[in-house]
Amino acid sequence: MIMETAFMDIVPGKELEFEAAMDKAKAVVAQAKGFHVIHVHRGVEKPSTYLIAIGWDTLEDHMVGFRESELFTQWRGLIGPFFANAPEVTHWNLFD
Amino acid sequence: MIMETAFMDIVPGKELEFEAAMDKAKAVVAQAKGFHVIHVHRGVEKPSTYLIAIGWDTLEDHMVGFRESELFTQWRGLIGPFFANAPEVTHWNLFD
Repeated sequence: MIMETAFMDIVPGKELEFEAAMDKAKAVVAQAKGFHVIHVHRGVEKPSTYLIAIGWDTLEDHMVGFRESELFTQWRGLIGPFFANAPEVTHWNLFD
Repeated sequence: MIMETAFMDIVPGKELEFEAAMDKAKAVVAQAKGFHVIHVHRGVEKPSTYLIAIGWDTLEDHMVGFRESELFTQWRGLIGPFFANAPEVTHWNLFD
């Protein structure tokens, strides 16, 4: 499995609205081909920062299948308005 | 549960030695009070980068209980020699 991590800096004061939007966005990404799991974490040191971890079958399932789909437009439309800046996205091979 | 994330940049060429050391280090940290789980990931974009995610009962279990214990000395002694620079450690509240 490939893990995608996305660090999202949210506009301060908009955290609860972002969390409500993310609840809806989770149901959108979950429809994508190759999707396994999503974990949402909120920063302890920086509470306006979130770490989103999404498990995919393959890198292509994320970067092509999801990113180029209408589902991505819906996902970004829900959560994008709360971003303070562009998310930092990285991919990882999960060892165990 | 609190998730600790540690980004570790490893000296290029030392990745396999680091992974063997991490296998031993996992058994060390697993003895700490409040430890739940450890996940080891290797970077796709930067294969000498690792993301270590460790679940703890509380922030203090990591920052005080583990960091100030002999177990931490063992942990760092195993994996520290392979660091290209200091790990970047962050804590997160896991939503779901």
